[in-house]
Amino acid sequence: MFSERMMSYAIELSKKADYKRISPNPFVGAVVCDENQQIIGEGFHQSHGGPHAEVHAIRQALNHRTDLTNCILFVTLEPCSHHGKTPPCTDLILESGIKKVFIGSYDPNPLVSGKKYLEENGVEVNEILLPEAQELNKVFFTNHIKNRPFIQLKSAITLDGKIADRYGDSKWISNAESRKIVHQRFRANTDAILTTYKTIIQDDATMNIRLDHEDEKELNVVCIDRKLELLQNQHLSVFYKRTDSVIYLVSDKEMNEESIQMPNVEILYIPFDNEGLMDLKTFGEVLLKKGICHLLVESGSTFATTLLKNHWLDELVVFIAPKILPDVQANSLFQSLDAMSISEAKKLNLKNVERINDDVLLTYSLS
Amino acid sequence: MFSERMMSYAIELSKKADYKRISPNPFVGAVVCDENQQIIGEGFHQSHGGPHAEVHAIRQALNHRTDLTNCILFVTLEPCSHHGKTPPCTDLILESGIKKVFIGSYDPNPLVSGKKYLEENGVEVNEILLPEAQELNKVFFTNHIKNRPFIQLKSAITLDGKIADRYGDSKWISNAESRKIVHQRFRANTDAILTTYKTIIQDDATMNIRLDHEDEKELNVVCIDRKLELLQNQHLSVFYKRTDSVIYLVSDKEMNEESIQMPNVEILYIPFDNEGLMDLKTFGEVLLKKGICHLLVESGSTFATTLLKNHWLDELVVFIAPKILPDVQANSLFQSLDAMSISEAKKLNLKNVERINDDVLLTYSLS
Repeated sequence: MFSERMMSYAIELSKKADYKRISPNPFVGAVVCDENQQIIGEGFHQSHGGPHAEVHAIRQALNHRTDLTNCILFVTLEPCSHHGKTPPCTDLILESGIKKVFIGSYDPNPLVSGKKYLEENGVEVNEILLPEAQELNKVFFTNHIKNRPFIQLKSAITLDGKIADRYGDSKWISNAESRKIVHQRFRANTDAILTTYKTIIQDDATMNIRLDHEDEKELNVVCIDRKLELLQNQHLSVFYKRTDSVIYLVSDKEMNEESIQMPNVEILYIPFDNEGLMDLKTFGEVLLKKGICHLLVESGSTFATTLLKNHWLDELVVFIAPKILPDVQANSLFQSLDAMSISEAKKLNLKNVERINDDVLLTYSLS
Repeated sequence: MFSERMMSYAIELSKKADYKRISPNPFVGAVVCDENQQIIGEGFHQSHGGPHAEVHAIRQALNHRTDLTNCILFVTLEPCSHHGKTPPCTDLILESGIKKVFIGSYDPNPLVSGKKYLEENGVEVNEILLPEAQELNKVFFTNHIKNRPFIQLKSAITLDGKIADRYGDSKWISNAESRKIVHQRFRANTDAILTTYKTIIQDDATMNIRLDHEDEKELNVVCIDRKLELLQNQHLSVFYKRTDSVIYLVSDKEMNEESIQMPNVEILYIPFDNEGLMDLKTFGEVLLKKGICHLLVESGSTFATTLLKNHWLDELVVFIAPKILPDVQANSLFQSLDAMSISEAKKLNLKNVERINDDVLLTYSLS
């Protein structure tokens, strides 16, 4: 089908963008076709603050002809109808004369509502909702719908679900290639790594990004550290000299910011309740304000279970190692929840299966 | 390489056999090539008691010419040098004039020792040991080297390693397609299913083979039932009217065979020690004598752990379902062993990864 083909092509275009340059904006691609089904304009959103995909595509088309009345616009995300950093795309569409638009996904922000505005102004708006368009902007959609970062939990487990032995040792469950992938694919593509002070102290890890043939790269760290224990452990490897990253300590301890003498360390003040659970709503909002739209969690099972219980897990990436550690005292992927029967088990959606030498990498989404 | 190509072709030939027809014999393929590297004879072992692969291949070659002096024989398993149900293949090789033989694997029985005999009689014997030749006859090799059946454990687990909830319920962890594969691929290709009286009573299953568009097929059942509890539960589904299969009850209870009034039920008398562990050596020998060379285990974690602990597991096939059941009281794949640290974890070898809709089927061998 012509329309589906054009929408798929628009999705391919959108992928040319670099996440770090467009974040917190979404990936968007757009194509303008003439009455002969020829592409006369195309484009994608390239940088935060820069022109939207529709603008690139329509401008290119207008170089061919001044009136686009008989043309069709394909755009992977509903066009915006509000004044943000750029003027509304809907106005440009109306000015161009385009009378028919296909959209690949809806904008989660009801204020933007470009479809309605276009229809009110005589433009026919159709949808071709491809799962790929949803997947591509999972971070953007989660940010806007849930008002928090997209949360991806990474774990390495034995076949029988253990993440560490009874002594807390997890070195190494997965193989060297899997550990490389953690850096190249997961740590390199997130805005920050989320962990707890316990994990940082236990592993004494730098929490940065190691890539082949390159210097280590810095990565923002968000560390749940209610009592600011890390500040008493300034010898830890995580406190290496940072130039373009920050360690955020999450705490409800009242403290004079100036009393923290460490560069690139910030306290995120978040209230905790009587049961020791932090105010997740505030936490999510604060992280988004800091520009942290995608968060990679590498933590122990206690914190992972808190996230699972509170529906704060969006994606689970699990390396299954060819090992069995049948010890009831070993650390499991998650601790007990209320679920006790099979029917109450938490359901996951399998997204991808990949063999990594003798490990298997499984990716699941949670809904 | 010509030799490797010929050996691979011989392996392909060997696979034409039907396990049920050749068991307890191995899969064997053979090819005879002339001095121009042309195949002039080929064959495979087709039925227990029938001619060996070499016989088929050499006879075919002898139809082309009476002297095979300049020919090469490729055979996937070391030729036999003893009088079994058929005369020794080594004699036929010597008579044919063949002076050069390539073998794909060694016969585990030192008495057979065809290589030595051939060499003593002026035949050059080379080896091309392909992993596939080992894999193909894993059952045969295990039977002869370990003097017990090949043991394959099948399990369906949640991502966090649970095989049943705290109430013992496992219906259903895996999806319908996975359960179909259990019947079509695993139950249909084993000599018997091994389980415990507890599992049979708990699930009240027939333990037979269900295939699409066919009547259910019978399957031998080996049931660990020291106190012969099943005999008190003759209403169970497993006691359906059997015509070509047997339920073997494994027990050390002294009992007059004639007192068992049930057709197709046999007691396998096996001693148990003070800790309740049966004499595995005797058990293995008895099963082989009954023609049970391949055993599929579907049991709870207690018995699976006994098998693991005693190095009685050869292969593990595990369906991983997209579910999490974080309950410490749920049933795990294995119970505690002595292993407590990561370095003591039991190592597995990943053989295969397969996606079954939203389940993932992993196959491991144990060494």
